[in-house]
Amino acid sequence: MMISTNFRLSRIVQYTWKTDLVITLSCVAAYFIDKHLLVKHFVLPAIVPTVLGSAIAFFIGFNNNQAYDRWWEARKIWGALVNDSRSWARNVLSYVNAGDGNHDVKTTQKIMICRHLAFIYALKSALRPQNDNTFRKFLSPEEHEKVIAHSNVHNAILVLQSQSLQQLSEQNAIDGFRFLELNQMLVNFTDSMGQAERIKNTVFPTIYIFFTRVFIWLFTILFTIVCAHEIGAWSILMGAVVGFVFHITHYNGITLINPFSTLTTSISLNQICRTIEINLLEMLGEEEIPQPVKPINNEYIM
Amino acid sequence: MMISTNFRLSRIVQYTWKTDLVITLSCVAAYFIDKHLLVKHFVLPAIVPTVLGSAIAFFIGFNNNQAYDRWWEARKIWGALVNDSRSWARNVLSYVNAGDGNHDVKTTQKIMICRHLAFIYALKSALRPQNDNTFRKFLSPEEHEKVIAHSNVHNAILVLQSQSLQQLSEQNAIDGFRFLELNQMLVNFTDSMGQAERIKNTVFPTIYIFFTRVFIWLFTILFTIVCAHEIGAWSILMGAVVGFVFHITHYNGITLINPFSTLTTSISLNQICRTIEINLLEMLGEEEIPQPVKPINNEYIM
Amino acid sequence: MMISTNFRLSRIVQYTWKTDLVITLSCVAAYFIDKHLLVKHFVLPAIVPTVLGSAIAFFIGFNNNQAYDRWWEARKIWGALVNDSRSWARNVLSYVNAGDGNHDVKTTQKIMICRHLAFIYALKSALRPQNDNTFRKFLSPEEHEKVIAHSNVHNAILVLQSQSLQQLSEQNAIDGFRFLELNQMLVNFTDSMGQAERIKNTVFPTIYIFFTRVFIWLFTILFTIVCAHEIGAWSILMGAVVGFVFHITHYNGITLINPFSTLTTSISLNQICRTIEINLLEMLGEEEIPQPVKPINNEYIM
Amino acid sequence: MMISTNFRLSRIVQYTWKTDLVITLSCVAAYFIDKHLLVKHFVLPAIVPTVLGSAIAFFIGFNNNQAYDRWWEARKIWGALVNDSRSWARNVLSYVNAGDGNHDVKTTQKIMICRHLAFIYALKSALRPQNDNTFRKFLSPEEHEKVIAHSNVHNAILVLQSQSLQQLSEQNAIDGFRFLELNQMLVNFTDSMGQAERIKNTVFPTIYIFFTRVFIWLFTILFTIVCAHEIGAWSILMGAVVGFVFHITHYNGITLINPFSTLTTSISLNQICRTIEINLLEMLGEEEIPQPVKPINNEYIM
Amino acid sequence: MMISTNFRLSRIVQYTWKTDLVITLSCVAAYFIDKHLLVKHFVLPAIVPTVLGSAIAFFIGFNNNQAYDRWWEARKIWGALVNDSRSWARNVLSYVNAGDGNHDVKTTQKIMICRHLAFIYALKSALRPQNDNTFRKFLSPEEHEKVIAHSNVHNAILVLQSQSLQQLSEQNAIDGFRFLELNQMLVNFTDSMGQAERIKNTVFPTIYIFFTRVFIWLFTILFTIVCAHEIGAWSILMGAVVGFVFHITHYNGITLINPFSTLTTSISLNQICRTIEINLLEMLGEEEIPQPVKPINNEYIM
Repeated sequence: MMISTNFRLSRIVQYTWKTDLVITLSCVAAYFIDKHLLVKHFVLPAIVPTVLGSAIAFFIGFNNNQAYDRWWEARKIWGALVNDSRSWARNVLSYVNAGDGNHDVKTTQKIMICRHLAFIYALKSALRPQNDNTFRKFLSPEEHEKVIAHSNVHNAILVLQSQSLQQLSEQNAIDGFRFLELNQMLVNFTDSMGQAERIKNTVFPTIYIFFTRVFIWLFTILFTIVCAHEIGAWSILMGAVVGFVFHITHYNGITLINPFSTLTTSISLNQICRTIEINLLEMLGEEEIPQPVKPINNEYIM
Repeated sequence: MMISTNFRLSRIVQYTWKTDLVITLSCVAAYFIDKHLLVKHFVLPAIVPTVLGSAIAFFIGFNNNQAYDRWWEARKIWGALVNDSRSWARNVLSYVNAGDGNHDVKTTQKIMICRHLAFIYALKSALRPQNDNTFRKFLSPEEHEKVIAHSNVHNAILVLQSQSLQQLSEQNAIDGFRFLELNQMLVNFTDSMGQAERIKNTVFPTIYIFFTRVFIWLFTILFTIVCAHEIGAWSILMGAVVGFVFHITHYNGITLINPFSTLTTSISLNQICRTIEINLLEMLGEEEIPQPVKPINNEYIM
Repeated sequence: MMISTNFRLSRIVQYTWKTDLVITLSCVAAYFIDKHLLVKHFVLPAIVPTVLGSAIAFFIGFNNNQAYDRWWEARKIWGALVNDSRSWARNVLSYVNAGDGNHDVKTTQKIMICRHLAFIYALKSALRPQNDNTFRKFLSPEEHEKVIAHSNVHNAILVLQSQSLQQLSEQNAIDGFRFLELNQMLVNFTDSMGQAERIKNTVFPTIYIFFTRVFIWLFTILFTIVCAHEIGAWSILMGAVVGFVFHITHYNGITLINPFSTLTTSISLNQICRTIEINLLEMLGEEEIPQPVKPINNEYIM
Repeated sequence: MMISTNFRLSRIVQYTWKTDLVITLSCVAAYFIDKHLLVKHFVLPAIVPTVLGSAIAFFIGFNNNQAYDRWWEARKIWGALVNDSRSWARNVLSYVNAGDGNHDVKTTQKIMICRHLAFIYALKSALRPQNDNTFRKFLSPEEHEKVIAHSNVHNAILVLQSQSLQQLSEQNAIDGFRFLELNQMLVNFTDSMGQAERIKNTVFPTIYIFFTRVFIWLFTILFTIVCAHEIGAWSILMGAVVGFVFHITHYNGITLINPFSTLTTSISLNQICRTIEINLLEMLGEEEIPQPVKPINNEYIM
Repeated sequence: MMISTNFRLSRIVQYTWKTDLVITLSCVAAYFIDKHLLVKHFVLPAIVPTVLGSAIAFFIGFNNNQAYDRWWEARKIWGALVNDSRSWARNVLSYVNAGDGNHDVKTTQKIMICRHLAFIYALKSALRPQNDNTFRKFLSPEEHEKVIAHSNVHNAILVLQSQSLQQLSEQNAIDGFRFLELNQMLVNFTDSMGQAERIKNTVFPTIYIFFTRVFIWLFTILFTIVCAHEIGAWSILMGAVVGFVFHITHYNGITLINPFSTLTTSISLNQICRTIEINLLEMLGEEEIPQPVKPINNEYIM
């Protein structure tokens, strides 16, 4: 997640230099083709890029809307995970008691809350491109062995949780009503987890992105040719400027389309997971609480 | 679902050659009609295609928005099926016990989970144009006989599930609270199944698509005629280019309108069903787990 | 619901001939007024219709978005009725047993499911402009007498259903948990019924439609006048063409605004009700199952 | 709620004459300022109002979308009140029985349903600008005294309802499951009531409306000046026409922004409250049922 | 929240003078650069700002839509807090009784309701930039000590609430069904609290805002240069006017992006918290009820 509101020029160039180059070269080519070839045959009427321009602006707007919606939906899913994690911990701490079992209530509670942190970190690891073994430290070796064989580790952890619930219920450590509430949280976790996987695994229709790019490039060339008749080589500058405006706007949308990647605009999963960890450990009364995740270069948070 | 971000030119031509031809021929015709007929009478003012162009761009945008929403809604419905399938399996495995019945718990659980896989595959078969009998292998012959006579096989499977629930409940293998949770999942399956059928069976208002096509074609012709006065035969090229941009954008929307068809842009039901199958079989502790569905030509997944 | 993707020209003319005429006559009038009156005083600048054109395109787009949303919302409501009807029947069949009452379980179940079909058909009859007494055949004479006096027959049927639930509960034929599930369905039916009535009874803000029509007409006239100076009488053709594009697009939206009317674009309530009937009768194990509703002329389904 | 689809010209003038005047006078002033002052210095290029025009059309569209959404959300909230009111009455009538209390079941039911009507009318009174004491007639003097001191009368009525629920529960007139269902309705009423208050109390960001108005006015003036060079005094007419189109469209949105006011476009709360009253009294089996609310002049319903 | 519909000119200048200056100076610079430098080389064609103008208007519209949605979502979250606070108080007052504990029912109820007010004020303090200790006065010293060490005070208060619920449940002061209802409210509070934090902590993608600003500035300069050829120094005025329209519209959106800041357009948290306080104290039957929050200068409410 970007937090800085000012961009250094270097950063902008760093992000977009490839397309900048393609656009600039296309404009240069368009200018020379027009000057040496087309001009003898015809003068491109201004209506061509005008009509294309407003149509393409509209299609870019469509892409950006959908991209932003994906990004915001991803953020909401992780927001729901934060909320339900707190409710899970609160419910476990307040509603699980000794029952007629001979277990230590505090230990049971701690196991169930730490196991939930393992679930959170395992889910993060599955969503992000690189692997991350943080979740191991919240599991006992036995638990770890049980879940590691599964292709979907975070789902396997939820099975452990519901087995614990069943056990607590059989020991009368929770009654039916508390069982309902705690199990509802497991259902919610399953939903949030599946929703996040849906966004990660569903590729945004690639034809939209592909053709929008082609159309921007086409528009830039036609625009340059139209300007070339009136302002000569300066048309290269104008074509490039207009091309940049369209391309950068489209690019801004694209950076939001995969919210679980590791771009600087991605959802700050590290930060959110840490927030959950801090909240839950504080609720458990632990003494060693980790620090919140720090921004990188005051520019963005991962 | 398309996964490749680059299209081969051949593929683009393969998809759109019919319309490409119609557009090109219309432009050619428009040019000659203008040259030999209209030019003697009047010169079409540029305002005609300009006004039409931005209006039609807007209407295409409207179509595309609705098409994308249908597609994304369809994807969400199947996402919900994934989530609820996992919750169903987890609940069946953790909460169904022996009770005072004389059934084998493991067997009962396996039957209820496999029957759910049959539901999933039967639903897929009903949504996709071609039939698919995969669901049979997850049903016993008796079960199969009971459901096959129904016009809505997947619905009939859900009836079997709730009869099992009732039986388990009568044997005290699940209590009222667990009954609530398990039955809620059956209600959710009914909802998702009906929602998917709604999208499949509700034809997107055909007048929108029909008239948008007519208007694009009309616009292309008028645009060509306007250009013809300034650039002669080159207007055919310009008319075709602008016509392609509008038509392809409209076409991109259309490919998303029926998300359960078997276009390369359709929802990848094969892949999703297989994911559910893998997850549930792993949770059951089965040894033979099928492979995930592979992309076809690294281009798309069905 | 339209199902044919091709429109015969005759159908288009049949739908729109009145407005076609008004638009054409307005264009003719505009041409003559300009030629004989205005031309002596001033030449209308092209900027007037240009600015109006893109503004009006935007406002039409707004109308169409809201119209489509009403239509889709209406379809979703009836989709929810389909889903909940199936869940209702499944729950009644699986969860209602003998209890300590001396009723015949099968008969009780059949009564409750047929009564639900009466609810569905009574609701349809209330939403559509014409009355329809199909619901009578699913009620006993006593039931019919009880509900017919009510101004809201479908609501009265739901009261009968909840009285049956209460009775079954008092006879221990269902326990509290099953009562919860079945009553939840009655609440859902109440919600869907009220939502459908809301859409039927809430007139889409008429000022939007009125003024959009006035503005399209105004725009067409101004557009014709502008063209008249350049292309003479041909401006009538151009004015009419552009006027048609705007008007038909607006008209397409209007046909979706009242989704429970009996236009060919309306929600196909006959078909949906029949689907519910078929599903429920099959679940009951009835032998006489009616046929699905057939399309009319392969053009649309009611 | 407007129900007439035709507007008399007089009504349009009556609604908008103030702005009509301002716009017309501005156009006149713009014309004379241009003629006597500006013309000596410069000729305003057409690009100025063109660029402004499409930008402002877009911003008006934004306002209208949000306004319509507020209006429709308000309508949905009252739709939910209708639905939940029917469910409340149905549940009270079917599920409240004698228990071991010595109360008269019929009387208790009537009290609880009439008290709900008091809630509905008290809420309406709080939302509409003028006070309305209709709610008194549905309360006993004791009840009235208890609630009238509260600044939020409708909320106080809900407290009475939940006290009755608790009492019925203590007398075993309802069991825990029925308590759940009835209490859920009270929670729903609280939600709908708060949502309606939210829309009433949250002023739509006034800067949007203020600046949109300023920009329309600015645009009209610039547009008139541009036309003045080409068509002289006729520019006043053209400026006014274009100004009216923009202003009326903006005005149409504004009329929906406060859906609980007493404009003719407001939500027809009188009608909705009466519908609830009729439904509930019929369900109670009352003999005196009031008439539905009639439209005023066949133009609108309050 | 702004409540005044008229802005004093001074206020507008006060808000925007910095950008006004930048825009004006840019226009001046653009004019002189054009006059002394560019004019010798080329005359900028009008198509450049025309195409840019409508594209940028579209992108501003996109920003504003998202900004308004954030603002309205924030308002809905606090609306939900109002609703659930009333339901919480109503449920506590009606459903908590003596049970077999030896606690004073009135006192217990008051503690639980005041503690909820502490939660509301602690949440407000966490969302707004400045700290606010109002929440202390609703907590006993023991409670205050327990929660103050937590980094998330409002979350810690909710833990206290659920511990009280558990205690009441163990004393049979509430049964399982009432426990369900009360605990559901705690889950709702957790959700609303997390949702509000999500909006506060998620920075709106800064690249959108940054580039939209750059593009508006670029557009203003190009627009001025185009006008300069036709109207000389007057182009500075025209450039500034058009620049202001675009910039102010963009600025209007930006003021809504952080709805929990202390701008005059922010959500009026002070007012909402006070409303909850008044409602709950009245329900408790307290005598000293604070006054509603007053608008500041009749301009806005905090």
